[in-house]
Amino acid sequence: MATEIWNYQDKIEFSKEKANKVQLGETANSRSTLWCLLPGQHIHPHVHAGDHIWVVLEGEGEFLQEGLEPTSISAGAVLLAPAGDSHGVNNSGSQGLVFVSISAG
Amino acid sequence: MATEIWNYQDKIEFSKEKANKVQLGETANSRSTLWCLLPGQHIHPHVHAGDHIWVVLEGEGEFLQEGLEPTSISAGAVLLAPAGDSHGVNNSGSQGLVFVSISAG
Repeated sequence: MATEIWNYQDKIEFSKEKANKVQLGETANSRSTLWCLLPGQHIHPHVHAGDHIWVVLEGEGEFLQEGLEPTSISAGAVLLAPAGDSHGVNNSGSQGLVFVSISAG
Repeated sequence: MATEIWNYQDKIEFSKEKANKVQLGETANSRSTLWCLLPGQHIHPHVHAGDHIWVVLEGEGEFLQEGLEPTSISAGAVLLAPAGDSHGVNNSGSQGLVFVSISAG
């Protein structure tokens, strides 16, 4: 595949049903996704074989990890959950929570 | 390592000498970096074995790829350069250019 460039704002798509995952690009090495959560929506903590890196672009919420207290995150946060670490998020704010998620490995 | 969370604004560090690379986190699967370029600074097009994903957080510039015309990028751009694709950037704007770079694979 060739290099691809998106503007994340063009890809934002919320769902009233659940946290919405918009696929950006995927290769053998990585998967890039835009997550869009309305206020009150969440992703339950879960574990992957690879790393997950999140870059929060809009909104605020609570980062969730099994056995730990929630941690506040907001636009500007960059988060690295290494392989095997659980990670989830709750949109505890009053606006949409939008972040890029990259999984690697 | 445990999950790490940064605010990218706390990590911004420009250098008058050259495009500045601020390391965030590194595992066996990925390397996460914050690139900070003053106006006029650039990264020559180069190739890696793995994918590179960029998330532009501040500023504007030209994405450079060997053999292709430059492409304008600005805050909000998400870019996926798969393994083997050359990629570079020129800060052609009037303010600092700041982006997260994640290499995978």
